[in-house]
Amino acid sequence: MSNEKRPFITKEQAEEIIKDIPTPFHIYDEAGIRRNCEAVKKAFAWNPGFREYFAVKANPNPYILKIMSEYDFGFDCSSEAELVLADAVGADGAHIMFSSNETPAREYAMAYNMGAIINLDDITHIDFLKDIIGDKFPETMSIRYNPGGVFDMGNGIMDNPGDAKYGMTTEQLYDAYAQLASHGVKKFGIHAFLASNTVTNDYYPVLAGQLFELAADIEKKTGCKFAFINLSGGVGVAYRPEQTSNDIMAIGEGVRKKYEEILVPAGMGDVAIYCEMGRFMSAPYGALVTRAIHAKHIYKEYIGVDACAVNLMRPAMYGAYHHITVLGKENAPADHVYDVVGALCENNDKFAIDRDLPEIVTGDILYIHDTGGHGYSMGYNYNGRLKSAEVLLTESGEAKLIRRAETLNDYFATLDGTEFAGKLLSK
Amino acid sequence: MSNEKRPFITKEQAEEIIKDIPTPFHIYDEAGIRRNCEAVKKAFAWNPGFREYFAVKANPNPYILKIMSEYDFGFDCSSEAELVLADAVGADGAHIMFSSNETPAREYAMAYNMGAIINLDDITHIDFLKDIIGDKFPETMSIRYNPGGVFDMGNGIMDNPGDAKYGMTTEQLYDAYAQLASHGVKKFGIHAFLASNTVTNDYYPVLAGQLFELAADIEKKTGCKFAFINLSGGVGVAYRPEQTSNDIMAIGEGVRKKYEEILVPAGMGDVAIYCEMGRFMSAPYGALVTRAIHAKHIYKEYIGVDACAVNLMRPAMYGAYHHITVLGKENAPADHVYDVVGALCENNDKFAIDRDLPEIVTGDILYIHDTGGHGYSMGYNYNGRLKSAEVLLTESGEAKLIRRAETLNDYFATLDGTEFAGKLLSK
Repeated sequence: MSNEKRPFITKEQAEEIIKDIPTPFHIYDEAGIRRNCEAVKKAFAWNPGFREYFAVKANPNPYILKIMSEYDFGFDCSSEAELVLADAVGADGAHIMFSSNETPAREYAMAYNMGAIINLDDITHIDFLKDIIGDKFPETMSIRYNPGGVFDMGNGIMDNPGDAKYGMTTEQLYDAYAQLASHGVKKFGIHAFLASNTVTNDYYPVLAGQLFELAADIEKKTGCKFAFINLSGGVGVAYRPEQTSNDIMAIGEGVRKKYEEILVPAGMGDVAIYCEMGRFMSAPYGALVTRAIHAKHIYKEYIGVDACAVNLMRPAMYGAYHHITVLGKENAPADHVYDVVGALCENNDKFAIDRDLPEIVTGDILYIHDTGGHGYSMGYNYNGRLKSAEVLLTESGEAKLIRRAETLNDYFATLDGTEFAGKLLSK
Repeated sequence: MSNEKRPFITKEQAEEIIKDIPTPFHIYDEAGIRRNCEAVKKAFAWNPGFREYFAVKANPNPYILKIMSEYDFGFDCSSEAELVLADAVGADGAHIMFSSNETPAREYAMAYNMGAIINLDDITHIDFLKDIIGDKFPETMSIRYNPGGVFDMGNGIMDNPGDAKYGMTTEQLYDAYAQLASHGVKKFGIHAFLASNTVTNDYYPVLAGQLFELAADIEKKTGCKFAFINLSGGVGVAYRPEQTSNDIMAIGEGVRKKYEEILVPAGMGDVAIYCEMGRFMSAPYGALVTRAIHAKHIYKEYIGVDACAVNLMRPAMYGAYHHITVLGKENAPADHVYDVVGALCENNDKFAIDRDLPEIVTGDILYIHDTGGHGYSMGYNYNGRLKSAEVLLTESGEAKLIRRAETLNDYFATLDGTEFAGKLLSK
């Protein structure tokens, strides 16, 4: 799939938006999100029960969630706040997958009371849940699986689920399904997340093959009837222009082949396929818009911008690449080398290191790509810096403010009961 | 210096506090902070003008700042929020060092209007500042220096200032002081931060030697009169029990020797020494108190706690070590190996990996050491998880709530102007 890294707004559009909403801000492309939602539905249309549960952690803005809900998608929630968000956009229990780990009792109670599908991370959580809800287990429940060791996609790409804290071992799995059945659970799901941000069309099909065979065996040996198989997330985004984007049609077709090969012959042709994609659903359809405010020439060339890791932490935390376009200079030669940096007193606050870019002068508007997932949501307030606004570019081309920027009042809010409140909080 | 990693609260004290303030929370030891403040003052008592400017970013709680201010310490601020905090605890301009980089115009204006000492990060900021304040430059100003290349402490420990975005080159420095003098600045400072979290008594003395020689040369060549030399931060903390803590008396004495050797003969025996320590002033005097809520046995042994990277990000971001004590099991043999993990759907959410610890059962209270600096202040809200309370253990032994825990209302606050506000925010 092509991966041109073309901004979804022009410099003129950005200048117009900035008149009302100062930089920095995240902007999301409604049309792009919808195109992708439709593509996902189409790719799995062969499976009548298919449902994507959008991973709320990727972009917990209710306007984004509301768009997802219009495609009958559900929500993968991992905390109280995410459950409340799903509820606020009208999701019922069947549209909420509670995929959590190290879960506090209060959150299990909340998910249970909302009728959410609970996806158990560990075998000990069965008794933990029983202590909370008694023996009235839900009709439908899911279990998270961790095969351990190395997960090999057969194309040179691997990951290490054996080092991950999530899920149950194969042996625990059989035991856990039997325990759940004894608690009256009637319909079962299985879930696994074995690799993060994969840029290969093979991940879901390989994972599906393993899960389908396992589910068929569990159904045969325990009599537990599977209602769904949840491929979770892990379908990633081509952050670098030289990468080839995932082709969701090819991915859907790869899963279908495994389904026909394994589940249909096992008499499980009615099993629904669920996903919990977050990044793939949202990251490419967001950008961080920021202005160059300083140009510094010391041992390297630095461009200082008015955004920082507070707005986008992935480069600081993971050394992650995010493509940058200088708006209005889309076709200019990339004949300068810059570090693009934010204001934090933290030397990892760099959006780009030794990046080939067109000449940048202060005042230029930089468009940092692929921030629609794990962008705003991973923001912090280090150095007392404030989180930005979020803007939705609607299908009609309107720039709609869907979250205001933080103020000092927000930053100081939790000091409200203290003797400093009068000096820090406006009345 | 000994580094016993002994908690400053007992299990009984923790249980008592938890009755009112549920886990997780950060707790700070007022007595420890004060002892250390006194030690710092004593270590530099030979320098009449000495002042520590506490780096607010390490712990931006006004109660902590207030304690610092009682020792006549000032505040190293890098943002609007930090300036407001310094003001709220009563700091005047002379007690505020505005050490910022990629600074927005608004923040320079604010620091200037407060009479703060402005520490310029780059030579271009002189004109940038002039555009904001006109030609009424403050009487006292400082410049941040970056020598480039590798900074060698002569004891096998080095760092790479040449890769850091901060400060001016040597050549720019001479030019910048001359420019400031031409704008009417009368008293000058120099500042450098060349290594982070050093655990060696050599860092400050080596740095001081270089800065003293440079300042003497600048004074000779430009006629600019130095009022202070700012050694910034970088004096670190022994996070690991096998490390030896910095000895602030030895550090102060090392700086004094360089002062006598270089500055006094240069006729600069009236220059004040300033510091901007943050971590050293606060980190060892804070702990994150959290309860074990799950014990998981798959390919490794996991202890799930009710804190997560939202409360302490250093292990997730830097792979940083924080010592852990299981309260009440201080003397039990460390004969189990655990990963201690939080609830985030993020596999780096691990407070400890393969750590030797006493046997932990759910309900045990874990005391995560050295979170008084860059702990709460680096918190985020990933997965919709909420930041914790902060508690001050006063000298009289009272557990005083100095910041309440976040609520969902705080988390959703910036959605207040949206159509979802009614469902997300309580009235």
